[in-house]
Amino acid sequence: MPAYRAPVKDTQFVLDAVVGLEKYSNLEGFGQATPDVVKAILEEGGKFCENVLAPINLSGDIEGCTRHDDGSVTTPAGFKAAYDQFVEAGWGTLMADEAFGGQGLPYVVGTAFSEYMSSSNMAFGMYPGLNEGAQAAIEAVGSAEQKHRFLPNMVKGVWTGTMNLTEPHCGTDLGLIRTRAAPQDDGSYKITGTKIFISAGEHDLSDNIIHLVLAKTSGAPDNVKGISLFIVPKFLVNDDGSLGARNGVVCGSIEHKMGIHANATCVLNYDGATGYLLGEENKGLRAMFIMMNAARLGVGVQGLAMGEVAYQNAVDYARDRTQGRALTGPADPAAKADPIIVHPDVRRMLMDGRAFNEGARALILWGALQVDLAGKAATPEERQLADDLISLLTPVIKGYCTDLGYRIATESQQVFGGHGYIREWGMEQFVRDARIAQIYEGTNGIQAMDLVGRKLGANGGRGTQAYLALVNGALADARGDERLAEIAAPLEKALGDLQAATMWLLQNGLANPNNAGAGATAYLHLMGIVALGHMWLLMAGASHAALDAGTTDTDFHTAKLVTARYYAQRYFPDARALRAKLEAGSEAMMAMPVSAF
Amino acid sequence: MPAYRAPVKDTQFVLDAVVGLEKYSNLEGFGQATPDVVKAILEEGGKFCENVLAPINLSGDIEGCTRHDDGSVTTPAGFKAAYDQFVEAGWGTLMADEAFGGQGLPYVVGTAFSEYMSSSNMAFGMYPGLNEGAQAAIEAVGSAEQKHRFLPNMVKGVWTGTMNLTEPHCGTDLGLIRTRAAPQDDGSYKITGTKIFISAGEHDLSDNIIHLVLAKTSGAPDNVKGISLFIVPKFLVNDDGSLGARNGVVCGSIEHKMGIHANATCVLNYDGATGYLLGEENKGLRAMFIMMNAARLGVGVQGLAMGEVAYQNAVDYARDRTQGRALTGPADPAAKADPIIVHPDVRRMLMDGRAFNEGARALILWGALQVDLAGKAATPEERQLADDLISLLTPVIKGYCTDLGYRIATESQQVFGGHGYIREWGMEQFVRDARIAQIYEGTNGIQAMDLVGRKLGANGGRGTQAYLALVNGALADARGDERLAEIAAPLEKALGDLQAATMWLLQNGLANPNNAGAGATAYLHLMGIVALGHMWLLMAGASHAALDAGTTDTDFHTAKLVTARYYAQRYFPDARALRAKLEAGSEAMMAMPVSAF
Repeated sequence: MPAYRAPVKDTQFVLDAVVGLEKYSNLEGFGQATPDVVKAILEEGGKFCENVLAPINLSGDIEGCTRHDDGSVTTPAGFKAAYDQFVEAGWGTLMADEAFGGQGLPYVVGTAFSEYMSSSNMAFGMYPGLNEGAQAAIEAVGSAEQKHRFLPNMVKGVWTGTMNLTEPHCGTDLGLIRTRAAPQDDGSYKITGTKIFISAGEHDLSDNIIHLVLAKTSGAPDNVKGISLFIVPKFLVNDDGSLGARNGVVCGSIEHKMGIHANATCVLNYDGATGYLLGEENKGLRAMFIMMNAARLGVGVQGLAMGEVAYQNAVDYARDRTQGRALTGPADPAAKADPIIVHPDVRRMLMDGRAFNEGARALILWGALQVDLAGKAATPEERQLADDLISLLTPVIKGYCTDLGYRIATESQQVFGGHGYIREWGMEQFVRDARIAQIYEGTNGIQAMDLVGRKLGANGGRGTQAYLALVNGALADARGDERLAEIAAPLEKALGDLQAATMWLLQNGLANPNNAGAGATAYLHLMGIVALGHMWLLMAGASHAALDAGTTDTDFHTAKLVTARYYAQRYFPDARALRAKLEAGSEAMMAMPVSAF
Repeated sequence: MPAYRAPVKDTQFVLDAVVGLEKYSNLEGFGQATPDVVKAILEEGGKFCENVLAPINLSGDIEGCTRHDDGSVTTPAGFKAAYDQFVEAGWGTLMADEAFGGQGLPYVVGTAFSEYMSSSNMAFGMYPGLNEGAQAAIEAVGSAEQKHRFLPNMVKGVWTGTMNLTEPHCGTDLGLIRTRAAPQDDGSYKITGTKIFISAGEHDLSDNIIHLVLAKTSGAPDNVKGISLFIVPKFLVNDDGSLGARNGVVCGSIEHKMGIHANATCVLNYDGATGYLLGEENKGLRAMFIMMNAARLGVGVQGLAMGEVAYQNAVDYARDRTQGRALTGPADPAAKADPIIVHPDVRRMLMDGRAFNEGARALILWGALQVDLAGKAATPEERQLADDLISLLTPVIKGYCTDLGYRIATESQQVFGGHGYIREWGMEQFVRDARIAQIYEGTNGIQAMDLVGRKLGANGGRGTQAYLALVNGALADARGDERLAEIAAPLEKALGDLQAATMWLLQNGLANPNNAGAGATAYLHLMGIVALGHMWLLMAGASHAALDAGTTDTDFHTAKLVTARYYAQRYFPDARALRAKLEAGSEAMMAMPVSAF
């Protein structure tokens, strides 16, 4: 069975060296996040994930969820007990508002914990993950009464939440939604329609499930401007907070999927179910995107999480498995063969994983800090800057980190040779689980279009300019230290490619929007390479500083510098290739008549 | 359920334009392969795959194989009936020697058919595929008596064959083999040991299973120089050809795998089983590599096959699924949304697949021709050249075509959005099935080491020089036609990168062999890009020629030229990046102490 060790030390390094958590102790919620508190959360949270969630990950995959004839769904053995422990320990309350029973800690701290949860058991982590998204939407646009009625139990975790967007004929293009909401005299609505792909849509972990459902009210425009958002609880909630009648929403079936078997992906049939308008009528998409943006960062975390746990197990295997001899002569002459970690091509796969994981962890926690700052920074300018940055980088974190998470999971599986293909080793589960993260919450192609079509030019390109200035600033800071040139020089070159690609898109996307679409994925990956490279420059600087200051932890910082160098040599070269693909434009991509495919 | 259409027309184009089948009609076996015969084989073979094998692919994946308490194994519903049809129609006899009941057709023709078989049902195709490998070894090194006893029924397909290399502690490093062969007075051996990962190791399709087993004889050197190969039939074969006693080899269990569920992957326990030495004692590895080389080409075919069938289904879906609007304005204003094939990023995924599939088909059939020519060409020089070329390119075909096949299967799955993750659509099966091809018959890392460590410098680099000269020759031929510059110019640049990388490896791999290991995978991919590019240059030339000659099939050739252009713009840029990674060397890859991972 695969192992998992929460990378607490690396998280702390990032919080210190990249995020600079202590700098923000004057901000709301950050004051409580003292180094001791954060350390305790990471260590205890890590233990919970290692000891409670990881042991039921493989068994959960094999058993999967079971739907019964009455529409109820049972999660795999051990999930209910683990979830009870999760609720008992209050792990779901970290980031929630204190007004509703949360601990009010920064988003960046909760995000660090959520990586551990996904690494140890991605399917499990989705239940609280979706709950958090639903809470965020209610908190943002719900009435005081709605918040009071639903949030305390959701924060506690005794109730959970879901997001209901997709219908059989309608995924990305939400204007096509057919689910209807008929207004009732008491101000509620009757919701009727079919939703599919509803993660955590029905299960036995919580006492109630609060579905947030996109639907069209009678007479609303039949496009994206006519979509409203509704709260549809599985059990109606009485005024005293107790559970009332079973509502008219039933799980019609659960999907047989490639992975995340332990999370029930439901078809939900709404048959005149009672729903309550959440936020304004016809403004449902805006409210849903509050959930979506947080969810997209959360999906980026899943990419990292799968890369990390797959990497860890590949390292263990490469140390233990003996096969062949080192090219430079036997490493262990007394044995009949050397451990395969002596082979450069095995090292390549491990270092690919390490360089991505540590870079992505830094980027994601830096991104989570921007979410905090966008809401809590001292000045409007700082809040605006943070919001601009995270708006721009959200599709990059979602798209790049999940594409790479899948690639790293696959490469880590490859380290195992034939054993990697066998279920009991658990590596193939990581690949299957990682795969969904490239698809849901907007496919990575949609992320790329969001980046190129919306984010790049938003507010006259303000966020883009701010981001390029930020990386340029880091390069300027690095110029004083010759030792950083090995990472700074290729970063500068890649940044130049990113700037050139940006210019190309501005010039050619306007003339023919297909040029923007044709280059979108290449552009997203190019920005991902720069974004992780920026993080590696900061981390290398911090490790040099720590070594200069005489840290006793020389092994950690020396390894950091080796990995930075590996990233510089092995990730940056793709930047130029991506730019070349982008600049090829859309002609050859679009020239084929549909009939000729 | 996914569909499959055998790409007969494209196969014929390749056989005509790239392979030039008719040029070789003077060679053994080629005379029978007239255009009419080949057309009939491809069309009838295609129909068999479309109508018999494809319909049981998804159901076979879901049901999988079942092992019973007595060690017997049942294949999924429909497999036995389909296999009976396969035998009845003689599909397994295409390439086999006429002396043993085969049709004696060229390997290139059989290879074309095997692509269709793998696309339609990869798990099924493995049963005859392994049988062919076993036949090849017996034919190459068996005694006349052994050939007579085993080959006719194996060719017919009423018996099947297997390859037994791997043991629990021993995969790539065959010197570690522990299975023992004790000589008996009658000249036979008693084989004892445990073999794992034996594809098609036990099943209900054939009357007998002929296992070829690597083992060490008593007193043999305890390394790769002490390995012998044995024939171990499941049922002993009497002198009159009838089946005798059940031999002491039993399937102990079957593996639960990521994919190819309908092929039984067995643990085989040999307990004093009767075996017959095949070839010379202690020369087993050499005989096994006869099987292996054919098998590696066959695995490359699987990569292409998964890319092709996944692409076809992605095209169908992209034509049918409506979602969103074309960036340039509604393509179908009367409908509520456009088919997603209008979106450039969807096109990107489709064109990636098309450009790989058609290029890989050409490379593989060209490679199969070299196998034919190595055995049958008129002069020793031609035979030597063909052998040099296919020796060099075999690891590229295996490694590059399976890495890309997995990538294309994944991208094609992505076209389906959330539906791609659901089992009933069949796309996730293609990804899971494609994954094994990167692992078995020598992982792709081993292919890269074979290429860089063995093939590149073999015979003083004779094969490498011949290959570079071949591509240079094609470039010289193309210089007369300005229209080919759009593919020739980037090919020339990529070839320059390949030559530079080759020089770098020669210079730096000698000084430190870790440099060769560190660059091996990048080098293999770089050569793969050049090899497919070479094919695209030839195909573009042929399509221009056909159009110039006034072909009525303008759509086909116009599409070919668009795809060639797409390949040139979107595949070649990676060549420079791969060279840069390779030239970074091994320092950062090897610097990390094992304890620091």
